[in-house]
Amino acid sequence: MLTLYYAPGSCARASHIALREAGAGFELRLVDFASNEQRGDAYRKVNPKGRVPALVTDRGILTETPAILTFIAQSHPEAGLAPLDDPFEFARVQAFLAYLCATVHVAHAHIRRGERWADDPAAIAEMKRKAPEVVAGCFQLIEDELFAGPWATGDDYSIADPYLFTITRWLPVHRLDSASYPKIQDHERRMLERTAVQDAIATEEAG
Amino acid sequence: MLTLYYAPGSCARASHIALREAGAGFELRLVDFASNEQRGDAYRKVNPKGRVPALVTDRGILTETPAILTFIAQSHPEAGLAPLDDPFEFARVQAFLAYLCATVHVAHAHIRRGERWADDPAAIAEMKRKAPEVVAGCFQLIEDELFAGPWATGDDYSIADPYLFTITRWLPVHRLDSASYPKIQDHERRMLERTAVQDAIATEEAG
Repeated sequence: MLTLYYAPGSCARASHIALREAGAGFELRLVDFASNEQRGDAYRKVNPKGRVPALVTDRGILTETPAILTFIAQSHPEAGLAPLDDPFEFARVQAFLAYLCATVHVAHAHIRRGERWADDPAAIAEMKRKAPEVVAGCFQLIEDELFAGPWATGDDYSIADPYLFTITRWLPVHRLDSASYPKIQDHERRMLERTAVQDAIATEEAG
Repeated sequence: MLTLYYAPGSCARASHIALREAGAGFELRLVDFASNEQRGDAYRKVNPKGRVPALVTDRGILTETPAILTFIAQSHPEAGLAPLDDPFEFARVQAFLAYLCATVHVAHAHIRRGERWADDPAAIAEMKRKAPEVVAGCFQLIEDELFAGPWATGDDYSIADPYLFTITRWLPVHRLDSASYPKIQDHERRMLERTAVQDAIATEEAG
């Protein structure tokens, strides 16, 4: 049995959706960001980085969204969530995950988590001001260059899709709208039709 | 034949070392950061993100260090650069790559590339001031929690090792010293003994 530590609507949603797409047996454990549980001693024993997601497996704990998504795809090959037998296509999926993780999520984090990179309140406010412009640039690049269609990396649905969808849903935090990015908006709409996505959102919103 | 677009000492060095460890046939193409070549139209056709590394293969172009490293490992299985047949151990390697890419490299970037996340010079200066503290925190976490030893993820050398080594060599930019992190310093020393590492550094320094 797998246990996914998550916070509702956080990047852990990508792993949550992927577990449902894979038909994996798993349970959810809520990490209460409102009380800063992710920084407490108990959770630090699960993930010393103090972040979600973390996936507890019978062999140990995995962290980092690209790694957890890759683990779900590789350990459930019958679900077809990544091109496991083609190193080039597999690397294309990995590149999409890496861009979302290291550039898009990071751009987003500057609106709410500026204290990671500055102490001065004026500097934190400046990052907050600029974040929507940076996030918009990332989504424009995805729309124009990276999104292959109909799914993120091409004809086949993969672990890149729930991750893109999860971050697309953060656009309103920046007062941005997926309608500005037609391919991404269409992707969001098709993701919302999937049972795994509907069930993941409903479960997270029910707390 | 593979072509790696790189800048000397940049994160592309991780892929450069891995190509040599794999015994892959490749050529190097320097991207001149001094003249901002990475932001020019010609290079944008190679990598629209305007970053290094980019790896040109006979099937297309790959970007993002974790993806390129994974491609090198999977397409050269005889080199043993990742636990390809064990999804859990493979995910542990991926998690190490993701932490280096999305947290450690990002922390480093705030000392030189603050303009990515702020326009106000005072805010950029504040990020620059805080960056060494953030990078030191990342390396302390690697030393205390993530580094398995003797190699990054355990008994076997993997694609995580050249990436950790590459970023370790950036510590002096922050006036930090690997001597503060004994396991990481020992890792750096053993990396410097490897022919692939010596050849990669010598080639990059020769321009």
